[in-house]
Amino acid sequence: MTLDEVVGLIQPVNGKSAVKAQGRLDRLTKPLGSLGRLEELAVHYARITGDVKPNIPRGVIFTFAADHGVANEGVSAYPSEVTAQMVLNFLRGGAGVNVLARHTGVDVRVVDIGVAYDFGSVPRLIQKKIMQGTNNLLREPAMTRAQAAQALQVGIDLATAAAREGIGLIGTGEMGIGNTTPSAAMTAVMTGRPVADVTGRGTGIDEAGHARKVSIIEQALDRHRPDKGDALDVLAKVGGLEIAGLAGLMLGAAAARVPVVLDGFIAGAAALIAVGLQPLCRDYLIASHRSVEQGHQAILECLALKPLLDLDLRLGEGTGACLGMGLVQASIKILTEMATFDEAGVTERD
Amino acid sequence: MTLDEVVGLIQPVNGKSAVKAQGRLDRLTKPLGSLGRLEELAVHYARITGDVKPNIPRGVIFTFAADHGVANEGVSAYPSEVTAQMVLNFLRGGAGVNVLARHTGVDVRVVDIGVAYDFGSVPRLIQKKIMQGTNNLLREPAMTRAQAAQALQVGIDLATAAAREGIGLIGTGEMGIGNTTPSAAMTAVMTGRPVADVTGRGTGIDEAGHARKVSIIEQALDRHRPDKGDALDVLAKVGGLEIAGLAGLMLGAAAARVPVVLDGFIAGAAALIAVGLQPLCRDYLIASHRSVEQGHQAILECLALKPLLDLDLRLGEGTGACLGMGLVQASIKILTEMATFDEAGVTERD
Repeated sequence: MTLDEVVGLIQPVNGKSAVKAQGRLDRLTKPLGSLGRLEELAVHYARITGDVKPNIPRGVIFTFAADHGVANEGVSAYPSEVTAQMVLNFLRGGAGVNVLARHTGVDVRVVDIGVAYDFGSVPRLIQKKIMQGTNNLLREPAMTRAQAAQALQVGIDLATAAAREGIGLIGTGEMGIGNTTPSAAMTAVMTGRPVADVTGRGTGIDEAGHARKVSIIEQALDRHRPDKGDALDVLAKVGGLEIAGLAGLMLGAAAARVPVVLDGFIAGAAALIAVGLQPLCRDYLIASHRSVEQGHQAILECLALKPLLDLDLRLGEGTGACLGMGLVQASIKILTEMATFDEAGVTERD
Repeated sequence: MTLDEVVGLIQPVNGKSAVKAQGRLDRLTKPLGSLGRLEELAVHYARITGDVKPNIPRGVIFTFAADHGVANEGVSAYPSEVTAQMVLNFLRGGAGVNVLARHTGVDVRVVDIGVAYDFGSVPRLIQKKIMQGTNNLLREPAMTRAQAAQALQVGIDLATAAAREGIGLIGTGEMGIGNTTPSAAMTAVMTGRPVADVTGRGTGIDEAGHARKVSIIEQALDRHRPDKGDALDVLAKVGGLEIAGLAGLMLGAAAARVPVVLDGFIAGAAALIAVGLQPLCRDYLIASHRSVEQGHQAILECLALKPLLDLDLRLGEGTGACLGMGLVQASIKILTEMATFDEAGVTERD
């Protein structure tokens, strides 16, 4: 499916299923509404999938990895080679996302969509490299419009195939040294906030590094003038390959009515693009957590998404998404496994 | 072990283990501190248990059930008979706490410590009834000092036996129609806040019911004058049997260096008593979530506990504790299963 086809396929979510799910929740042996956001989450799941008696869905985290030309400008505390090294760590199961995915009972699929390293043949690595990292967005557009579209297509195709395979819950993950810089740039453009307000410390740069990062983003936006009304333009000029892959993943999942659990700031920047391309996509997104990365709050407000967790996470990879997927599973079990007042012979309220 | 023995046995937590655990976390393949509260939680677990390479502990939620004489005053939206009905629901596995305990992989043990119903012989119900519900605290003290001490002892004994059995993580749960009333009374006394500030809607009473509830608590405190400096006095005069059981459970667990994951408001009221009896107990407590019940925030502030979750829960039973126990498990896996920079061959920061 092409981007245009996917955008055309995405439907409004199903209000009737939400009402039915809430009706069942209200008959369960608990005071009305007393499971708060777990109830909202079960209703949201029903609204997206149309399924009011869901089984626990098979879940997958897609962790897209790519490099960033702008990393050469000293915007990160780590060198670019760490992107490839972490890809290998993901494949061996030793990274944070692997641990939390096992904890939640979901799989991690690792996608090279633009790492500046030739992996050769590596088992289980999904090889979809568009280019060896983006161009340095301080000097030139990060990608051409065609490259951005190609990277979006990778995500669309992966989501579409996953849905066909029976995956019922998709989480977003990413790895890319330097990627909070394009994410902050995209956030500034899409939310209209000043660059300094949405630019954080990433993996942990110091004060001077932070000032340089803000200045680089401001220069890039001045130079490239990305058009807020044309999300693909923003993505190409100041985005990233893994961010494009994630945006495509969200659109492909929404077209297949598969809920997408967002990780943190980078996922949020990708969501701004996906929703920019198709506003209906927003209702298929579940925000797992509020990141420490300061631009994330602006994204959550812009998309009107309320995060489930606030655990001071800022690792990325999909770690927060794993925990959020666990809460989705829990909410479905509440909906389907709890006894009703009738079944349990419990007296209803006066 | 008697209450005095348990109080004497509780030791300060182990700072050295915390430093060692943080040392390992800092060598793992992630930016320093980037797993935020999950890292704090792993460190907290090590600080309590002294174990810096822990296995995943076996976890149990103890759900104490009891009735409240004050329920006759119309302080709850549900009749007292629901307490016994819910006990049977717990034993059949149909309640919220059962669903979430299965989700997390912990057991639920149900304790009748004072339900106003004769269960006869019921498999798996832990029968430790002190009396058939408390007295109506509006008219007379809820319990005698001896009854309160007996109920505390039930909790101490259960925690001590669980620790001997190899249980490494204890969660608190409760069921008792009317029990937000004694909890609010205890919270007002122990935190020094006005009754109206710490009294909420419980299972969902209306405006008039809420005003009546505040007035009843104020009258009870005027009549009985519980002594804030004598936690057992407060517990006896305006407490509850399940609340006493929970306070004893916390003390017994702390003496055995087993971390206790607190559920919401009722657990918090019990924690005020446990910490009133032995201030060192506080460091063995993990607050799973911030309840909607308005007095809970006052308790969390008084005990300087920062909740892990904020999901608008107000069901009790141990539901929030189950989710918190899942996060404890996740944090231990982060500590023990993630690769270090050396192991993974990942370059450390510049």
